[in-house]
Amino acid sequence: MKKSVSLEEAQSLLLDRAEAIGEECVSLLQANGRILSQDIKAPINIPGFDKSALDGYALIAADTVSAEPSNPAQIMVVDETRAGFPANSKVVPGTAVKLMTGAPIPEGADVVIKYEDIIRNGDVISVFKPLKARDNIISEGEDIKRGDFAAAKGMRVNPGLVALLAGLGIYQIPVYKQLKIAIMSTGDELVRPGEPLRTGKIYNSSLFGLMARCAELGAQPIDLGIVPDYMQSTCARIAKGLEVADIVISTGGVSVGDYDVVKDAMVAAGAEIIFWQVAMKPGSPMVAAVRDNQFVIGLSGNPAAAMVTFDLIVIPLIKKLMGIENPLPVKVQGIFADKFTKASPQRRLLRAKLERKDGLDYFLLTGNQSNGAMISMVECNVMLDIPAGSGAVISGQRVTGHIVGNISSVYDKESDLIYERKNA
Amino acid sequence: MKKSVSLEEAQSLLLDRAEAIGEECVSLLQANGRILSQDIKAPINIPGFDKSALDGYALIAADTVSAEPSNPAQIMVVDETRAGFPANSKVVPGTAVKLMTGAPIPEGADVVIKYEDIIRNGDVISVFKPLKARDNIISEGEDIKRGDFAAAKGMRVNPGLVALLAGLGIYQIPVYKQLKIAIMSTGDELVRPGEPLRTGKIYNSSLFGLMARCAELGAQPIDLGIVPDYMQSTCARIAKGLEVADIVISTGGVSVGDYDVVKDAMVAAGAEIIFWQVAMKPGSPMVAAVRDNQFVIGLSGNPAAAMVTFDLIVIPLIKKLMGIENPLPVKVQGIFADKFTKASPQRRLLRAKLERKDGLDYFLLTGNQSNGAMISMVECNVMLDIPAGSGAVISGQRVTGHIVGNISSVYDKESDLIYERKNA
Repeated sequence: MKKSVSLEEAQSLLLDRAEAIGEECVSLLQANGRILSQDIKAPINIPGFDKSALDGYALIAADTVSAEPSNPAQIMVVDETRAGFPANSKVVPGTAVKLMTGAPIPEGADVVIKYEDIIRNGDVISVFKPLKARDNIISEGEDIKRGDFAAAKGMRVNPGLVALLAGLGIYQIPVYKQLKIAIMSTGDELVRPGEPLRTGKIYNSSLFGLMARCAELGAQPIDLGIVPDYMQSTCARIAKGLEVADIVISTGGVSVGDYDVVKDAMVAAGAEIIFWQVAMKPGSPMVAAVRDNQFVIGLSGNPAAAMVTFDLIVIPLIKKLMGIENPLPVKVQGIFADKFTKASPQRRLLRAKLERKDGLDYFLLTGNQSNGAMISMVECNVMLDIPAGSGAVISGQRVTGHIVGNISSVYDKESDLIYERKNA
Repeated sequence: MKKSVSLEEAQSLLLDRAEAIGEECVSLLQANGRILSQDIKAPINIPGFDKSALDGYALIAADTVSAEPSNPAQIMVVDETRAGFPANSKVVPGTAVKLMTGAPIPEGADVVIKYEDIIRNGDVISVFKPLKARDNIISEGEDIKRGDFAAAKGMRVNPGLVALLAGLGIYQIPVYKQLKIAIMSTGDELVRPGEPLRTGKIYNSSLFGLMARCAELGAQPIDLGIVPDYMQSTCARIAKGLEVADIVISTGGVSVGDYDVVKDAMVAAGAEIIFWQVAMKPGSPMVAAVRDNQFVIGLSGNPAAAMVTFDLIVIPLIKKLMGIENPLPVKVQGIFADKFTKASPQRRLLRAKLERKDGLDYFLLTGNQSNGAMISMVECNVMLDIPAGSGAVISGQRVTGHIVGNISSVYDKESDLIYERKNA
């Protein structure tokens, strides 16, 4: 066991011991949001045949070489067809087939002219200019060719990929199994939301926040509830978690205090402790253990501290187990646009929101940065990384952050900090 | 009915007719990802009482005013406690209570000193420097005060908010109902993936891509399947959709061709046509109708054209019905870093990917831009808006885009175009 590791050591010690879990075949719609476990090659061409890009007439370009407004080419319409129905007739010189968008190009034809560009009299159409072969024809395999790469192992399935694979006729695809994450909270002070609160007790928030985080990542959260601060009950609950889940997470019971039992319970459950304590604030009290490819993680009892270590250290582990190839959070450099007056003797992670204005990236703190503060987590999408030994962080200073949340509002000019506005 | 409207007209004609659907109360975990339908005020303070920030001793700061290394203050430990359990004893001058992180501050005490900073002999601790009142005490209401705004109507519930609300003891919250979206595809050429493909037929991709898109938005997609190109079957299927869904979407059957029946079927179903055709490429053939607060939308039979109009016009409608307050896609200016040689007589939307390098936003095309091309949708997160009458778009040119997809990889230096790399 290593003690008091750096953030980067904590990340890599876990990633080094983790392998993507098994795969399964699921339907396209079930696969949406999951991670592909194998490359997929196109089994057919798309389009599967030359087809018309518009509603018009298929004919032979050579028939129109001398066409001009005063001397149009006169072509005989011999058949008509539409998408899904190949024409019964071939196109031979001097003839055309009327067709709709998406209809297969009849044998012999090499160009399509649209309705609006001809004049039709009975069965004869007049074409007023020379046509260029292949115009308005979508060629077989133009979008994707049989044997081409259609999707890569490690890609997250999204609606565009679902459409592409459906278009290739594929309806079941190989993805990594859904990760199961069992979560429990230790602490005699904890009460489940909805129940009455006696003096000195607090509502359990981490269990729910972490379950929601796991669901958002596409994993299946399993609620192991609140566990009393006793060795036996903690042992039993961790063992129960290991029976049903790939990762067991507990909050609380990992600091240096007298009532800490989680670490001993992990060992009793047969897990090997990988590290204890991470040299950063918040989040210092954290313990990680492994048993084969199953992990047991103890996080701080402080909700914000638990969330910081979860986002920066546990999510990369979750992503690697899910089959994601670059599981570490992306780093971003930006300008601190707030004030934080405390010195940071330890490396400190600040909860902030990334905003872009006039092409520059700014960081705003999302609220109170104490270990237990929860408001600051709601709008946090980036954790600023303040090196150990730093003084106050001043407005205008360049800092580095780790992206941990949804940055979809980054380009939104109307975006602002909701809590500051509402509780001003 | 308006004909050939602009993109902005299409968006606002629909938004003007739409109102957020009804609300319901669901559990916190079910609410994750949904939109709050009411403001929520904090029912209690967090923390609910003054508590210790660390493992240490609670005492009276005034007892330590003359403490120094050579002459420490000597304080008698009279009790001990931990999180969840108020101490039995008060702290009076000359006494202290040992406590754990999170424990309530005993009556009379006004400061906490950590274990490591004292020396204990029997029941007496030595304090070697004067302490500042309130140090290491987290004050009642420091994170959030009773009556403060805890969450705003229109916010999307995220894991941070789930944690905050759980911490406030709230376990059920009011959210807008889940939107139901029924989707069908018309076209005699269409075959469901997994079934055999005869000459001239193609696999239906839009139905699956759009269902996946709806699921990703948090709506419930309903599969109405493939409908033959006949008035009666289309009518019946639209009517069936209106019985179960808030929006009915069909693909195909909306261009000017002979076999188009969707528009007439909408009218037969009692819906009022709002507009037909949008002046842009791809996506021109589109029809929208309304019946009270229910919508019937006909999109192009070309998969990419259907996706473009869905993303730019239908998603804002979906978001407004879901209760989201700023439903229009966010615009971003950037530098075109690709080539597109075609002129654009019509306003054109190009499927592209937003990348950020050295503080600048770049746009890369995601592949073939023809109406039916599906590969270009997989990596598309932005649609570039090329004005009517433009010539070729050249590398280095500034263009505006609408953000339509996941931009989480924007800051990722390792991100690139997967299909270009794999099929190079």
